[in-house]
Amino acid sequence: MTRSEIINKVHGRSSMFIICRSKHELRICRPRICVDYRRVVNYMKAEIVSTGTELLLGETLNTSAHYLTGKLSLLGIEVDYHTTVGDNPKRLEQILRQAIERTDIIVTTGGLGPTADDLTKELVAKVLDLKMEIDAPSSENIKQFFSRRKAPMPSSNEKQAFFPKGSKVLPNPIGTAPGAIIEKKGKTVIILPGPPFEMQPMFDNYVWPELVSMIGPHVERMNERVLKVFGMGESSIEKVLDDLMNLPNLTMALLAKRAEMHIRLVARSTEITSGEAKMALDQAEEEIRRRLGNKVFGRDQETMISIVGKALISKDLTISTAESCTGGLLGAAFTQEPGSSKFYLGGAVSYSNALKQSLLGVDEESLKAFGAVSEEVAKEMAEGIRSKTGSALAVSTTGIAGPDGGTNEKPVGLVYIGFATANGVHAEKFQFYGERESVRQLTVQAALNGVRLYVKQ
Amino acid sequence: MTRSEIINKVHGRSSMFIICRSKHELRICRPRICVDYRRVVNYMKAEIVSTGTELLLGETLNTSAHYLTGKLSLLGIEVDYHTTVGDNPKRLEQILRQAIERTDIIVTTGGLGPTADDLTKELVAKVLDLKMEIDAPSSENIKQFFSRRKAPMPSSNEKQAFFPKGSKVLPNPIGTAPGAIIEKKGKTVIILPGPPFEMQPMFDNYVWPELVSMIGPHVERMNERVLKVFGMGESSIEKVLDDLMNLPNLTMALLAKRAEMHIRLVARSTEITSGEAKMALDQAEEEIRRRLGNKVFGRDQETMISIVGKALISKDLTISTAESCTGGLLGAAFTQEPGSSKFYLGGAVSYSNALKQSLLGVDEESLKAFGAVSEEVAKEMAEGIRSKTGSALAVSTTGIAGPDGGTNEKPVGLVYIGFATANGVHAEKFQFYGERESVRQLTVQAALNGVRLYVKQ
Repeated sequence: MTRSEIINKVHGRSSMFIICRSKHELRICRPRICVDYRRVVNYMKAEIVSTGTELLLGETLNTSAHYLTGKLSLLGIEVDYHTTVGDNPKRLEQILRQAIERTDIIVTTGGLGPTADDLTKELVAKVLDLKMEIDAPSSENIKQFFSRRKAPMPSSNEKQAFFPKGSKVLPNPIGTAPGAIIEKKGKTVIILPGPPFEMQPMFDNYVWPELVSMIGPHVERMNERVLKVFGMGESSIEKVLDDLMNLPNLTMALLAKRAEMHIRLVARSTEITSGEAKMALDQAEEEIRRRLGNKVFGRDQETMISIVGKALISKDLTISTAESCTGGLLGAAFTQEPGSSKFYLGGAVSYSNALKQSLLGVDEESLKAFGAVSEEVAKEMAEGIRSKTGSALAVSTTGIAGPDGGTNEKPVGLVYIGFATANGVHAEKFQFYGERESVRQLTVQAALNGVRLYVKQ
Repeated sequence: MTRSEIINKVHGRSSMFIICRSKHELRICRPRICVDYRRVVNYMKAEIVSTGTELLLGETLNTSAHYLTGKLSLLGIEVDYHTTVGDNPKRLEQILRQAIERTDIIVTTGGLGPTADDLTKELVAKVLDLKMEIDAPSSENIKQFFSRRKAPMPSSNEKQAFFPKGSKVLPNPIGTAPGAIIEKKGKTVIILPGPPFEMQPMFDNYVWPELVSMIGPHVERMNERVLKVFGMGESSIEKVLDDLMNLPNLTMALLAKRAEMHIRLVARSTEITSGEAKMALDQAEEEIRRRLGNKVFGRDQETMISIVGKALISKDLTISTAESCTGGLLGAAFTQEPGSSKFYLGGAVSYSNALKQSLLGVDEESLKAFGAVSEEVAKEMAEGIRSKTGSALAVSTTGIAGPDGGTNEKPVGLVYIGFATANGVHAEKFQFYGERESVRQLTVQAALNGVRLYVKQ
């Protein structure tokens, strides 16, 4: 049996949140849930309910659920469900009932327009058993919205000024649909408009401060960190980190990107201070880096190219590129971030064999003897561009991106990456899998990673 | 009261679909639902169930639900709900039960990985009351996946070869997680992996043909066409096409992409024949092309580069590139599709002024007098690479991608694109807006569009 313990009452606007400790976990809870000593504490949970038929036609991507989830997570509120439903009153009512039943905070987007099928407020009122009443300032704002535009106000817009009784109305400076926060029986329903450019400012300006003032400064405690890994798969990482996966004060999740693995750490702190969460993350990061070594290339906002660029600048090294199968993607990666002219000089895209000879001075004999996709040609390409540009380092790519052009000896995905420096030249052989774009992207990442490891020496 | 009427039985693989008419709408239905004459016909409904804690942390945007919804809509299958739930067995089971209860087709994404919290297949089996059993070909594929990489197969990957009994297993050429289609008691559950770059090819290659063969050739009736426009904004297009926006047999929607506008046409036909829908689309396309002229560059799966590549091949022209602000992106675009070596020779990325001189022979005086971002230098770059490579055409880019480096005279977003041919050389000036990556992408699209218009002459 786990007991929960009240750590701190938060004297926010509604004084209804409390920080609790349950075993090793701290969460922000409702008193009615939190002071229940008989069972494991129930954390405050949220559901995002998106309405709008356009979301269910594959026309519009639901970026709002993503946005709101990120924000709520930052506050330590656990988002358990996203639910999307069309402008259908029966289904929306059922979804709202279910959301209010199973979570504590329900955030809706959409269904606040003037048309007959916009019914979110009305259905929230029905589900919470509240009457609808007019909000005079909203009514005035909507009238002004139209008079500013010298347009007559359609009578249908009148309904946008009506809200469930007891609503805290949230103004909409961009459109005609105000939002609302409604609290009843320990549940909070936050009603926001559908268009992201109306929803986001309303959330940031009105809902976020409201939530922060309710929850208090303890939000810093919920800390996260992402470690980025190149050159190891999901299961290999899991094997190496197996015993760290279920630490009492930390959750760890693996996320596969095209050419990278991300390890996401979230600290669950047993103290209110944010310092402890940071310490847990620091310790975990140190241990993971110790085990995975230089497979870990960065963390959080860092990208492979930002790491490589920083390293080149700090060592005052310049670089140039000679690309075949990547066709320019490697140069594009080097120049992706501002300030890349400090280390990247340029290069050649030698897609044809003739250009490998004329632009890079690759030996015709090498092309004949070993083929364009070979260790020898990769080395000559790197040396060639380095001598043309006078860069400290040079990287080359030559490979078979597919889907055609593969043979038994040289299958699709075979890539050679050449590295030339003042100390000499070498090439590495890779066998990638996947479709053409994957092979090209993996080649770029492997080339950047090779530069990273070289510069790090 | 609306009566539904059976228009046609579809003798697909499972013979379980029927085309019905309800008032003016045609839908694809299950017989058991469709032959109910007493009330409005209930259309075949789908739910997308996305699993993955990363979706509920605001880390990953749920693009898969959007993608799948668009595809199912095209087939006339009504998507009623999107539901997202974390890697939590209790919640996922409850969501699956609910989905199977309230819809006919359930598509899941995610939860097929090798780790202990990947439980989608196991929970689908539980909810449908099926045993799990090993699929020998999948087991073999997973073993080969690791042996190709010369890596030992972690024992945790074994579970990826187990499926609910009776599954039609869908191979995954990119990762280790196969998908599955399971039919039981008139319900279809389609299980797909989480990463979009694995999910999308699996859906396109295996699920789409399966659904089409189940539903029959009548899907053509739900016909869509996308026309792609370069060089006009949303409101200009809307103005020109205003009277076409609400045709009785066609819906038209505009969708803004970074550098393109897409006009999505969907034909609503009152007849079964696909001919009528096609005719409506053909007429609309003809009229739109008449009004927008060569601003329309392609349709449906065609991309700017596929159009340009086809045009170059058909006229037997070769091309090379000299890039500054795009840093290789233009070469990468030219080599994006297989077969690009037929027209693309290669080029130079002359990011530094020194390389503009040494690789391309740009005059030092021009750089001094006009600056690197100038009409003169753009022209010399194009001429330079054309004479180096001997290509029929050459394109160059030089501009200020930002965010730094802009001045009053030469603001961020100023770009010159040079075009050199046997007939001479010219450069066009562009002023783009947006952040660095937008300016670079817009430059690439404008360069490709310039080539398209030249080759079309």
